[in-house]
Amino acid sequence: MSNAKLDSKVVQNLKDVAQKLRIHSITSTQAAKSGHPTSCASLAEIMTVLFFQQMRLNLKHPRDPSSDRLVLSKGHAAPILYAVWAEAGLFPVEELRNLRKVDSDLEGHPTPRLSFVDVSTGSLGQGISVAAGMAYVGKHLDKADYRTYVIVGDGEATEGAVWESLHFAGHYCLDNLCVIFDMNKIFCSDIGTEMEVYRERLDAFGFNALVLNGHDIDELAKAFINAASTKGKPTALLARTTKGKDFLGIEGIEEMHAQPLGKRAESAIKHLQMKIANPNVRLTPKKVGKCGHAPEVHINNIMLCSPPNYRLGDSVAPRLAYGTALAKIAADNPRVIALDGDTKNSTYADKMRNAFPERFIECFTAQQNLVGVAVGATCRRRTVAFVSTYATFFTRAFDQIRMGAISHTNVNFAGSHCGCSIGEDGPSQMGLEDIAMFRSIPGSTVFYPTDAVSTERAVELAANTKGVCYIRTTYPSTTVIYNNDEVFAVGLGKVVRQKPSDEVLLIGAGVTLYECLAAAERLEEDCITARVIDPFTVKPLDVGLIVKHGKLCRGRIVVVEDHYQQGGLGEAVLSALADYRNFVVKHLYITTVPRSGPPAVLLDMFGVSSRNIYKASLAIMKK
Amino acid sequence: MSNAKLDSKVVQNLKDVAQKLRIHSITSTQAAKSGHPTSCASLAEIMTVLFFQQMRLNLKHPRDPSSDRLVLSKGHAAPILYAVWAEAGLFPVEELRNLRKVDSDLEGHPTPRLSFVDVSTGSLGQGISVAAGMAYVGKHLDKADYRTYVIVGDGEATEGAVWESLHFAGHYCLDNLCVIFDMNKIFCSDIGTEMEVYRERLDAFGFNALVLNGHDIDELAKAFINAASTKGKPTALLARTTKGKDFLGIEGIEEMHAQPLGKRAESAIKHLQMKIANPNVRLTPKKVGKCGHAPEVHINNIMLCSPPNYRLGDSVAPRLAYGTALAKIAADNPRVIALDGDTKNSTYADKMRNAFPERFIECFTAQQNLVGVAVGATCRRRTVAFVSTYATFFTRAFDQIRMGAISHTNVNFAGSHCGCSIGEDGPSQMGLEDIAMFRSIPGSTVFYPTDAVSTERAVELAANTKGVCYIRTTYPSTTVIYNNDEVFAVGLGKVVRQKPSDEVLLIGAGVTLYECLAAAERLEEDCITARVIDPFTVKPLDVGLIVKHGKLCRGRIVVVEDHYQQGGLGEAVLSALADYRNFVVKHLYITTVPRSGPPAVLLDMFGVSSRNIYKASLAIMKK
Repeated sequence: MSNAKLDSKVVQNLKDVAQKLRIHSITSTQAAKSGHPTSCASLAEIMTVLFFQQMRLNLKHPRDPSSDRLVLSKGHAAPILYAVWAEAGLFPVEELRNLRKVDSDLEGHPTPRLSFVDVSTGSLGQGISVAAGMAYVGKHLDKADYRTYVIVGDGEATEGAVWESLHFAGHYCLDNLCVIFDMNKIFCSDIGTEMEVYRERLDAFGFNALVLNGHDIDELAKAFINAASTKGKPTALLARTTKGKDFLGIEGIEEMHAQPLGKRAESAIKHLQMKIANPNVRLTPKKVGKCGHAPEVHINNIMLCSPPNYRLGDSVAPRLAYGTALAKIAADNPRVIALDGDTKNSTYADKMRNAFPERFIECFTAQQNLVGVAVGATCRRRTVAFVSTYATFFTRAFDQIRMGAISHTNVNFAGSHCGCSIGEDGPSQMGLEDIAMFRSIPGSTVFYPTDAVSTERAVELAANTKGVCYIRTTYPSTTVIYNNDEVFAVGLGKVVRQKPSDEVLLIGAGVTLYECLAAAERLEEDCITARVIDPFTVKPLDVGLIVKHGKLCRGRIVVVEDHYQQGGLGEAVLSALADYRNFVVKHLYITTVPRSGPPAVLLDMFGVSSRNIYKASLAIMKK
Repeated sequence: MSNAKLDSKVVQNLKDVAQKLRIHSITSTQAAKSGHPTSCASLAEIMTVLFFQQMRLNLKHPRDPSSDRLVLSKGHAAPILYAVWAEAGLFPVEELRNLRKVDSDLEGHPTPRLSFVDVSTGSLGQGISVAAGMAYVGKHLDKADYRTYVIVGDGEATEGAVWESLHFAGHYCLDNLCVIFDMNKIFCSDIGTEMEVYRERLDAFGFNALVLNGHDIDELAKAFINAASTKGKPTALLARTTKGKDFLGIEGIEEMHAQPLGKRAESAIKHLQMKIANPNVRLTPKKVGKCGHAPEVHINNIMLCSPPNYRLGDSVAPRLAYGTALAKIAADNPRVIALDGDTKNSTYADKMRNAFPERFIECFTAQQNLVGVAVGATCRRRTVAFVSTYATFFTRAFDQIRMGAISHTNVNFAGSHCGCSIGEDGPSQMGLEDIAMFRSIPGSTVFYPTDAVSTERAVELAANTKGVCYIRTTYPSTTVIYNNDEVFAVGLGKVVRQKPSDEVLLIGAGVTLYECLAAAERLEEDCITARVIDPFTVKPLDVGLIVKHGKLCRGRIVVVEDHYQQGGLGEAVLSALADYRNFVVKHLYITTVPRSGPPAVLLDMFGVSSRNIYKASLAIMKK
């Protein structure tokens, strides 16, 4: 550690500010009648030293790409985060009393509705992955001086996501990352041992791990300097702290967890005020330095560097077209990045890695961190990220994707290996709930392209669409049915077969679109003509197109998907028609847990083959 | 380590069997034209020593509750698991050639369709949690001698779930658990260092961690004895192995990963055959011992030890009733257990902990392991498990729940803190996609009880219902509307308000049922009478009841839920009506990411209050 010792006046000022933050944490949670003041108290010195001694910030533009980042992984300590920004001068301290009010953005847990928050936290154990994504971009893409800090509670350190992220940060030697563990929970005698256990674990995960007193201004300041000067590995500060520190009669009492101080607030505040030497103390954070800035970047209007190049009738796997398109948009824009979790030669993200290895991030078999890193990498509009793995393995990161949406993320996801059509690998590898999952994400867009041309356009559109985008890429090869110049748009479906005499509308996507087309052929042998629609996006669905053509087909619709019944294309169609009388819908879906077998056999066995569609169409003709 | 050395004849026999397993791994994947023979090859000696030297098995009844357990976490090595059971005599080795065929249960990844498989694997990093659940039950509930083994690939060791489980196993000193890491991937020069890193990590996570040569029969046998005799901590064997070991010209070649040997198969098999001293070697696993048996248990027909005891009009939080009911069924049956992830005083699982501390398993803030442990704990029908946390935090374990369904698990889940009605804590804590998630689980039952009486009955029913059950428990207090002797059943909804003049049907559950009732009151002021249905279970939904009363209400339905649009109660209702013309449905749901605020304000702001229902009902009257 550095031996530089802070001036005693500086230390006293920092101590005073720390106590003011404690007072704000009490008064704001008192006003809200809920919140976690004791979990704030343990952070007072850490926050103070970070903001007024260490971090370089831009108060005029808190999301300045060149300023340091702070992620409060333990989001329930939000009041002290708000307090420190107020003390820094970003907004009046009086506003803190609006904590948790419906007309204030000072919510129970931080969200990016606030200018100084990059990502929402509150679901535990996610902060390090996001911070690691920021640090990775800072070190490898921006090559800038900004540093990333993340504050983690000891309670959340049991989350596996934490260890995924620590492994990632250690592996990629993210020495611009500093993880602060607020070890405030363990009151029993063996705190020394526990700290040592954590130090050993962090050491084994590739960290420069330091144990320190989290309430000692000097120790904290030195540790941050140590972290900043340690090269080749990230630093973890294991800060020994006390929950409710300096709250008179409350310090370390477990029963006071997760609630305001109530009647004890007044005496606690008086006690804290007495500890303050200079009530008028005002400190200012360091400004962003004059060099080491992050580069200016442009991530709008991203295009395929060349249009799709297939022939009608070609047989191409949409997942392969995904890889092709990814490399093409990466050629167009140097801020497109790809992340994958040890599945790159199955998802075809390796086409991007081969073309632009410096913009491919291998995140190993650790999907939670994979998603978190992507969310972090896209913060402050630094990159446009595409994350790929098997469709069903995104279930592993549902919570991270959910929190991503609350964080206003623009990350794009591509799931390969969807449905029964993957065949022999069996149900553990089949994405059969991925549409349901991604549809439930607020503001999401769900692409389900059928052929290679539409897949390439889906990638291009996703790169420019706000919010979470999901592209379901099909495993087997499918026939190219669109011309290379066909125009696609979000929410725009395609009628791929029609005659004026059509009496039933078939809707399918991916492999089931071809099953619909085959069923239509067979129906025509029985003198029944069927219209076929490819929705292209399941969310938003082209409601107008479906209603219009559904009506023209006498209100008879058969919708077919290689997905379970719930939450997929079928229920999306039903939702679209809710408001209309006089439709009848037959929904074909995968009826139960499938098994290993040839794709065509499975599609038929589990209910979504052309034969099943043909039978359903005949049945619906009677309605 | 023990110094007992195996007889050289025994060693040679074991070596011969190991090579036979390699040959089976090649021939079966050749026949299937897909699979992972090289990932099997690294396991040949480990499997052989486990099955023919270490584990105590019952070939007549592979799920004998007293026999040792083996979980193959790296499920893609299924062919060698099948091969070793065939060599042990469970079924003819000829059947191995049916690998991955649609009419064989020898699937691409193991599933419990096979008598010798307890849980499905294939989604990586889940095996240790399941094995830890088995070991926990063995040590603390069964107090029996059986041991649990789990084989983990090094590729999956980056999954956070692995570290959650290691922490759990270390914390609970599960010395009847042995985790075998098949370290076959690292071919580069630093394998020694990597092994040491892993040893340090496992050591820091509370394991007796041993590094050994995974192809050395003697070392393996000694290590298993060491594991079995180590008390107070679980053992991890870090087995240095080679992918494709002993496959001529293929050993250690990365390109041969995840594919059959093709043209190289014949020479590889010949080479292996030459290594076999006695081609007719036949070994038999050890039998289950005469003492240390698992007790006989009965887990059918579980009942509340006393009926619900509320007064109509009482105000009780359904989550509190959940805790009450849990303790009541636990009093009725000694095999009911509860698991929670550091949220027990919010979910009210602590009522169970207070009543029966020995049957409460604290799993910390680590939801993936929480679910995996529960799945393991219920295997071989040892327990009836209830798992609780905040509804939205189950998204963290979606993959584990999904795999649980493929594993035919009967685990019950209870999610508290659903929807906007939690209020000030904000969106990160609100379950708004939980119904969508649990509905998408094949064979699941989704309970959404409205008051305390129905919640208690939901718990009782869940305990006796096969498959994954989910109970959505409401956070705020709700009014008791059912008598204590009201009869509830899965798939049976309740009409809670009706008049012959009803012109619109309102459907709500939990807080929205009360909003429906309030809207009905207000509509009546406008001389419009509305019928109200409480579905009780969202899956299966009482389709008959809804269709019948929907028709009586002129086909007009308003369905309201404190959940996002997709995959919830509303789309369940729409699915139920798909087959019928002449219904019109207005679906009210949470329209976007909510914010912190008072529950009643949020319900109104985001579209599901009685005011919103009233307006929607007026609008639908015109349809």
